[in-house]
Amino acid sequence: MAHINEDFLKLSGAYLFSEIAHKVKTFKDEHPDANVISLGIGDVTQPLAPAVVEALHKAADELASGATFRGYGPERGYDFLRKAIVENDFIARGINLSEDEIFVNDGAKSDTGNFQELLAKNVRIAVTDPIYPVYIDSNVMGGRTGVLGSNGHWSNVVYLPCSAENGFAPELPAEEVDVIYLCYPNNPTGTTLTRKELQKWVQYALEHDALILYDAAYEAYIQNDDIPHSIYEIEGAQRVAVEFHSFSKTAGFTGVRCGYTVVPRGVAAKTEKGDRITLNPLWNRRQSTKFNGTSYLSQRAAEAIYTPEGKKQIQATINYYMENARQMREALTNMGFEVYGGTDAPYLWVRTPKGTTSWEFFDTMLHKAQVVCTPGVGFGPAGEGYVRLTAFGQHEATAEALKRIEKLAKHKEN
Amino acid sequence: MAHINEDFLKLSGAYLFSEIAHKVKTFKDEHPDANVISLGIGDVTQPLAPAVVEALHKAADELASGATFRGYGPERGYDFLRKAIVENDFIARGINLSEDEIFVNDGAKSDTGNFQELLAKNVRIAVTDPIYPVYIDSNVMGGRTGVLGSNGHWSNVVYLPCSAENGFAPELPAEEVDVIYLCYPNNPTGTTLTRKELQKWVQYALEHDALILYDAAYEAYIQNDDIPHSIYEIEGAQRVAVEFHSFSKTAGFTGVRCGYTVVPRGVAAKTEKGDRITLNPLWNRRQSTKFNGTSYLSQRAAEAIYTPEGKKQIQATINYYMENARQMREALTNMGFEVYGGTDAPYLWVRTPKGTTSWEFFDTMLHKAQVVCTPGVGFGPAGEGYVRLTAFGQHEATAEALKRIEKLAKHKEN
Repeated sequence: MAHINEDFLKLSGAYLFSEIAHKVKTFKDEHPDANVISLGIGDVTQPLAPAVVEALHKAADELASGATFRGYGPERGYDFLRKAIVENDFIARGINLSEDEIFVNDGAKSDTGNFQELLAKNVRIAVTDPIYPVYIDSNVMGGRTGVLGSNGHWSNVVYLPCSAENGFAPELPAEEVDVIYLCYPNNPTGTTLTRKELQKWVQYALEHDALILYDAAYEAYIQNDDIPHSIYEIEGAQRVAVEFHSFSKTAGFTGVRCGYTVVPRGVAAKTEKGDRITLNPLWNRRQSTKFNGTSYLSQRAAEAIYTPEGKKQIQATINYYMENARQMREALTNMGFEVYGGTDAPYLWVRTPKGTTSWEFFDTMLHKAQVVCTPGVGFGPAGEGYVRLTAFGQHEATAEALKRIEKLAKHKEN
Repeated sequence: MAHINEDFLKLSGAYLFSEIAHKVKTFKDEHPDANVISLGIGDVTQPLAPAVVEALHKAADELASGATFRGYGPERGYDFLRKAIVENDFIARGINLSEDEIFVNDGAKSDTGNFQELLAKNVRIAVTDPIYPVYIDSNVMGGRTGVLGSNGHWSNVVYLPCSAENGFAPELPAEEVDVIYLCYPNNPTGTTLTRKELQKWVQYALEHDALILYDAAYEAYIQNDDIPHSIYEIEGAQRVAVEFHSFSKTAGFTGVRCGYTVVPRGVAAKTEKGDRITLNPLWNRRQSTKFNGTSYLSQRAAEAIYTPEGKKQIQATINYYMENARQMREALTNMGFEVYGGTDAPYLWVRTPKGTTSWEFFDTMLHKAQVVCTPGVGFGPAGEGYVRLTAFGQHEATAEALKRIEKLAKHKEN
């Protein structure tokens, strides 16, 4: 009989967000009249930009006619989109990348999950704690993480704690690591790294020949000019870093599905014998074998966000969400909560009331205020005592959620 | 420094179809005026069905409005599509499956490539030879195949040769195997298995507690009522088989990207200790972690092919391609070629002239007739001496290609 990959059995049954969805569904089934507001899962609420919708209609019409029909596209994405990406996201920022270093995908989650396939089972990975669960869970499936301890840490993973105490800026690992996952602006804490702090990591990677897997999914939310949008703004990063981008949050593509990964030609890993192997062609081989390209419609939709109209329209939506973030920060701070993030990111990281665990606070918020948040501990042990709130709601619903939280906070005080 | 997964280095640099695309591009660059006709890669040419186009437009409009906008969908696909799949592809054929056994994906290639992740590294796999390269290549990446011999066979893989000599019906493996990849109607040979022959395989799997990974991507092309469209038409298959479906060939979705995988609740694999683990929740965990759902537009498009209008329209296109297949069979047979397949599948498997390898024939066809075919040996050693032709061309181009091949064949005779 076929044997199972027992590494899969090490994982808890449910992925964090599936578990939250299940709890919310149960609550709604029991309270069919409740008006539940979600500030939990990082999903957007505003419609697609008109330029994007126009591109979708145009692409649908192209596929409707024999003369303009397109079937399989290149696995790494169409030239038109990779060109727009390079010009707008990199050349415009003074970063010199070429189109064959860009791989279009169906969203950043797939690639951040799959990229570890290229690496040996014995590489030592480091992650910030808290962290987006996909980085860890995909490495658990890849057999790289060892045993889960009672402290919530995997035995073969190096954790870099981020909390209010260190200003959410991780310290360099004390022990040698091979691969470092970084996500800035950060999910879940909503905090950022300055150019100088990011330089420190690139320097570490260059000195230790380590690989940085850099998740830049939220870069479009950066307001402060001193915060890098791409790790390639740092000298030398093209020799040590792979970068993941997503149009999900940039342009509301959570349902459309499109993103991209940058694998610069200079990034390598080594064989047991010590030969350096360039990762770009290997990732191309992986994608050609196990992926068949992103929907043509999604790629045309993504191209449209780089037009002058598209840029203006998606910026308006980003501003809309950042206005939510501003109001949330202000209101929650006034209520006496300790609030982090939310100035250069669509996430707020809120300390739970003393003595309340993050799942307890989640339950209270759901049952007493009908507001969904994400328990911080779901992102790792250092997330205990925090919850993540997202600014992706509609203004009215977000304001209503804040009112309910305020009422609940006042009620607790009395 | 990060070590590489050296299993990736065992693969030849290029995926078969990328290699062909590269050769064709080189030829076109050198002969910019040549009118190259592709009967090579299995890509469709006919436009999407009007019902599908209408669904795409409607979905784009939904995403354009705040009231109907949808973001992240369920990783396993929307209920509306899984319901349509179960009712039309299974219940209507007397197969009792439930919606939670269906996983919508972005095309069958991803899932046929990724499913092996659930299995231990030491499972022994069997494949037919020739075979769709993804089954083997993904297992090479998974470290399961051993060493590539000079005969083109991997040392840890059991090959089940299929050729004219055994009527393209593989024999049961002589040695014990854990996992068997089957694809019927077959890519690349275009041949099929009768119900009785398929029963033999289900019986084997039941007796040996083996897992069958059954690729049914071409089932919509079956004309003969005796040929099963799904392995679940065979009693007991729901305990041993996972089935992969694609809308790529059924409805021209090669650019739209949508398919689905069936993982029945009864299918299991075992731990080292001997416990049986149901694969369905494990695949769900894999998909929730490393995939974020299929484009909403693609799912609405797929739903539309199950409407009465949609069904009629996609059938008309299938008939169009099967008329190509009929003409190709007739013409090539008249030219003296040995031709297989093409009666219940969109592929023809053609014996190359005596003494000509399949890559030699590919080169001759490209350079002398400007027709692209796929060298049989690219699908495995038993494919040497054959090429695959597809019926997915336009009528006119297909007729023109046949004329050129005839001219070339006559020229050779003289």
